[in-house]
Amino acid sequence: MAEKLSTKHLLGIKDLRESDIGLIFNAADRFKDVLNSPVIKKVPSLRDITIANIFFENSTRTRLSFELAQKRLSADVVNFAASSSSVSKGETLIDTVNNILAMKVDMVVMRHPYPGAGIFLSRHINAQIVNAGDGAHEHPTQALLDAYSIRERYGDVAGKKVAIIGDILHSRVALSNILCLHKLGAEVMVCGPPTLIPKYIHTLGVKTEYDLRKALNWCDVANMLRIQLERQDIKYFPTLREYTMLYGLNKKILDSLDKEITIMHPGPVNRGVEITSDVADSKQSVILDQVENGVAIRMAVLYLLASQRD
Amino acid sequence: MAEKLSTKHLLGIKDLRESDIGLIFNAADRFKDVLNSPVIKKVPSLRDITIANIFFENSTRTRLSFELAQKRLSADVVNFAASSSSVSKGETLIDTVNNILAMKVDMVVMRHPYPGAGIFLSRHINAQIVNAGDGAHEHPTQALLDAYSIRERYGDVAGKKVAIIGDILHSRVALSNILCLHKLGAEVMVCGPPTLIPKYIHTLGVKTEYDLRKALNWCDVANMLRIQLERQDIKYFPTLREYTMLYGLNKKILDSLDKEITIMHPGPVNRGVEITSDVADSKQSVILDQVENGVAIRMAVLYLLASQRD
Amino acid sequence: MAEKLSTKHLLGIKDLRESDIGLIFNAADRFKDVLNSPVIKKVPSLRDITIANIFFENSTRTRLSFELAQKRLSADVVNFAASSSSVSKGETLIDTVNNILAMKVDMVVMRHPYPGAGIFLSRHINAQIVNAGDGAHEHPTQALLDAYSIRERYGDVAGKKVAIIGDILHSRVALSNILCLHKLGAEVMVCGPPTLIPKYIHTLGVKTEYDLRKALNWCDVANMLRIQLERQDIKYFPTLREYTMLYGLNKKILDSLDKEITIMHPGPVNRGVEITSDVADSKQSVILDQVENGVAIRMAVLYLLASQRD
Repeated sequence: MAEKLSTKHLLGIKDLRESDIGLIFNAADRFKDVLNSPVIKKVPSLRDITIANIFFENSTRTRLSFELAQKRLSADVVNFAASSSSVSKGETLIDTVNNILAMKVDMVVMRHPYPGAGIFLSRHINAQIVNAGDGAHEHPTQALLDAYSIRERYGDVAGKKVAIIGDILHSRVALSNILCLHKLGAEVMVCGPPTLIPKYIHTLGVKTEYDLRKALNWCDVANMLRIQLERQDIKYFPTLREYTMLYGLNKKILDSLDKEITIMHPGPVNRGVEITSDVADSKQSVILDQVENGVAIRMAVLYLLASQRD
Repeated sequence: MAEKLSTKHLLGIKDLRESDIGLIFNAADRFKDVLNSPVIKKVPSLRDITIANIFFENSTRTRLSFELAQKRLSADVVNFAASSSSVSKGETLIDTVNNILAMKVDMVVMRHPYPGAGIFLSRHINAQIVNAGDGAHEHPTQALLDAYSIRERYGDVAGKKVAIIGDILHSRVALSNILCLHKLGAEVMVCGPPTLIPKYIHTLGVKTEYDLRKALNWCDVANMLRIQLERQDIKYFPTLREYTMLYGLNKKILDSLDKEITIMHPGPVNRGVEITSDVADSKQSVILDQVENGVAIRMAVLYLLASQRD
Repeated sequence: MAEKLSTKHLLGIKDLRESDIGLIFNAADRFKDVLNSPVIKKVPSLRDITIANIFFENSTRTRLSFELAQKRLSADVVNFAASSSSVSKGETLIDTVNNILAMKVDMVVMRHPYPGAGIFLSRHINAQIVNAGDGAHEHPTQALLDAYSIRERYGDVAGKKVAIIGDILHSRVALSNILCLHKLGAEVMVCGPPTLIPKYIHTLGVKTEYDLRKALNWCDVANMLRIQLERQDIKYFPTLREYTMLYGLNKKILDSLDKEITIMHPGPVNRGVEITSDVADSKQSVILDQVENGVAIRMAVLYLLASQRD
């Protein structure tokens, strides 16, 4: 296995080799020990590294997860939220980020509403970029932590059947997950209302299913996406009640399946909409493990990218 | 005196024993030395502890005071403001906090608009919680710093007469203060317009007085509450001018009293409304001492709670 | 040269002696080495110093620059934004800052919309204040970094001809720049539409020019101010198109000059308004050097002020 990542940035799963993912997972294993150690809670790996978290969209959990990962690695952290930024004063993205870099920031973690924002930046500025979500395009650390959580549950990702269920069209999670799971040898199905599944999806080599029960009976792992009401054009959408009736996962459906599947959710959960509380809190759910693994994965990514700097 | 607090959380004064309060005060004495030392400005007590300040309501001084206390103790700090949070995306409080905890946060300092939010949380999650104000219910660190400031002024709280003056009904300070002062042996009176004093108040064993001058003549310490215009139903309230005429404390009234009383205020002060500037800035005022003591008290609370973790 | 600054605060360039500026520049030279060192990225100079960044106006770059400077110096940093502050609850500026100081903050970096806010504060509170911009009055660290960037380019500021071009009336940069450049022996011209040049400007000993080309032909350095649309009364202003036609700097004009001048801009840049992209990104532009120098200058100022505390 390679000692270093084959990429300078983490812009998307698309750019990662399988060996890169393995490297990240192995580093995450070690950092998870740190997270759970009662004694050694921080490592000095990123001492003297300054990281700017630049969020052009609100995000609680992703920003917090990155910030906690950075602090565990002893990095210096500055946060930059778009609401208080020069962006509203008419500055271009490149200028904004170049300005931050001129202040001698070593790494940029960026969330941006536009797909490809990180890729665009990486071509015009001289710094390492971690994509923390670019519109409905990629969200690579989420896909890595999801796959890592499956590996944790089953020992391996290869050969597993994963159904991604819900609003595939507006999800920033779906594409990265499909790419990551395929690279690791899993089979992927998407399931949801036809209005929320993009037409190009078959080109990614995934199965499509419109019937929740069939999808659940097929899969080992069901990744229940959040219904992101704030992103949707209300005209094309089944109502919330219709969605819950057709695609909401409850305990009754879960118990009626032939086998015990694993339930994932990228959060935040709309309890009673895409899954009921008893499913979210059941032993089959690894939702909180995903959150914990998110910090370990982000520590691993930041650590491996930083070690490329020499 | 017990070496450890009898409680795992600080949810309210209600749960504290007198010996707990003594323990906190003694620790605060030591931390106040640190605050005022020209040399040793930080202690490593909470190194490797990560604290999340979760504020579902805006707060300048309380958040800042906690954050400064945490940094003096060398803790790692992450801040979470509700305005940029998942809360607006429909996530439940328990899910939000559980997610933060899954990221391996050791302690949560929370302000929330709903009374009992901290208590509710403590029953459902596995972490230490410090209540930084839950609606108009409890605000325990404020009550502790107020009592500590009285002890600092008089050597002891027992036997002192404290009048809490103003809007008792909407105050997050009044209840905690009454409980804390009673536990330490002080007598408490509340004073204000009848519309702003809750009917149940006599059940707490406090005197009620509607005449400001009588309350001032009775007390050793007058705690002048802030008129929180943003919380009040305007129909039931005397106008600001009426309030100031009837309950505003000015230098003329203060100088007309038989004895020299001590003036407290939890801040932020509306100068010219509940007290005039010459009173706020007089030698009888300990308003800024309260602020300084707030950092020492919060250091003490965080330190003692953390030392329970072993 | 004096070993210490002649002033306790940095309220404006007005209070600085030439020797103070020299002291700051020499310290900035050393800190710039730290910024660019691959090895030693932080210095422990301000360990045990707590600095509060109090911003009553939004600011990305200035706040970030100060925060990065503080972290490079190992200070503890707390940020305070007016939007979440007690200010909206009716507290006075002095009370707000006194409260923060009572929490044992050592130094205050403040931006405020009102001219003279820092001076006012310094007369009423007992702490060191760095003015990070007070309305359209002074912005001393910006002027210092601008002059420092000229010194870096030419070896010396004395004798250089600097044209400040654009909206002089609403600029928080112009006055401090004029004062600083004069103290260092440069000649200064202001250039812009008559409606955007204040009538008192000649009392400062600067030339005035309404023709862009003449100003450019005169100067060694052109400091192109940002058009701050958010500050202007639209009635008195040439439209954006008119402004760009008359005062916008493009490559054609630049190449038509007799000599090679240096282009500065305090940012954020409105590309295509006050300067075109090819000018902003040309070799004659030192815009990003200014940003880098900003961190070094702020480290120098904070370091020198802190060393006065003994």
